[in-house]
Amino acid sequence: MEKEISQAVIRRMPRYYRYLGELLDAGVERISSNELSSCMHVTASQIRQDLNNFGGFGQQGYGYNVQYLYDEIGKILGLNETHNVIVIGIGNLGQAIANYVKFEKLGFKIVGLFDVNPALKGKEVRDIPIRMLEELPEFVKTTRVDIAALTLPKQNAEATAAQLSSLGVHAIWNFAHVDLDDVEDMVVENVHLSDSLMQLSYNIANHKK
Amino acid sequence: MEKEISQAVIRRMPRYYRYLGELLDAGVERISSNELSSCMHVTASQIRQDLNNFGGFGQQGYGYNVQYLYDEIGKILGLNETHNVIVIGIGNLGQAIANYVKFEKLGFKIVGLFDVNPALKGKEVRDIPIRMLEELPEFVKTTRVDIAALTLPKQNAEATAAQLSSLGVHAIWNFAHVDLDDVEDMVVENVHLSDSLMQLSYNIANHKK
Repeated sequence: MEKEISQAVIRRMPRYYRYLGELLDAGVERISSNELSSCMHVTASQIRQDLNNFGGFGQQGYGYNVQYLYDEIGKILGLNETHNVIVIGIGNLGQAIANYVKFEKLGFKIVGLFDVNPALKGKEVRDIPIRMLEELPEFVKTTRVDIAALTLPKQNAEATAAQLSSLGVHAIWNFAHVDLDDVEDMVVENVHLSDSLMQLSYNIANHKK
Repeated sequence: MEKEISQAVIRRMPRYYRYLGELLDAGVERISSNELSSCMHVTASQIRQDLNNFGGFGQQGYGYNVQYLYDEIGKILGLNETHNVIVIGIGNLGQAIANYVKFEKLGFKIVGLFDVNPALKGKEVRDIPIRMLEELPEFVKTTRVDIAALTLPKQNAEATAAQLSSLGVHAIWNFAHVDLDDVEDMVVENVHLSDSLMQLSYNIANHKK
């Protein structure tokens, strides 16, 4: 991938992947861009434009081969590789993530759980023991960690992110209520649940009118 | 709000609100668009453009009054009104949402919890009893419900959304792994955690290169 592709395009790719997966489950082998467009509520030209960023995958008059397109988008999204994930902060949200089997099907494997609360030490979620955060430096020496999910309070997020970077973990899936854009050599995906709730609130207020 | 404002702009407003809240907490009374720009990693012209959609709030040579801008953005986002929220599906994610006190500070009040698992009946999360989903029609007769958070399996999401609409609940905060764009007279905000994880995966793959 030589050219820079906008994050708006990237944001739509998982959705294509999801719909194509459902089509595959339903036994659909090929689909026209018009049909794909109508089930996804995206214009056919948007779909063509998006996919053309990666070379395009359709054939004039044939449409898309669902399996092929699904596999190619999977590769674009890096899903042909397994990602080892640790979760830091094993409250309800951390547990929800540790328990979400769907992620494993996509190649995201939970390999470690960490917290600072001694009461959690040695407890398990899906047979994975909860370790104390101070054990993290030892842990990464023997286990490859590709992604750290941060489900911890905002005030601890930045220090933990800096520590992760120094330990060679360079991707964070961040649920803490703070943007982590300043951490050096770190790929960050922020999931701000309050932000999404506020966007919903806006749309409720403006739907009524 | 007469004109349609793009969802891309709306998506940035909660982030402005969050940063302004932090500035307020830090005792900052006014800020130039350049300063706001540098702490938010957004260009000053982007900030001005975004705010101009709502009439603009800055004064030439003075910058922004932080409290005023915070309050105005809060109003734009509908945060001057309280929203009553129910959570349907009290697994780990549903519990995480029910426990997240931050939401309450923004005026989102959890008023009911529902599940279909009889084993959960009568258990409580933060003093709110878990009710059976079949009690929902009775519940909405006596309690105003503005938003339903759906933290339930994908296969139940569409039927539940349709039921909510028929019961007069017209906003869904959807965590189920399916888009709910087809439900009539319903404002939907989808939070697809897998999609966000896939976007992170893409950015990891393309960061290396």
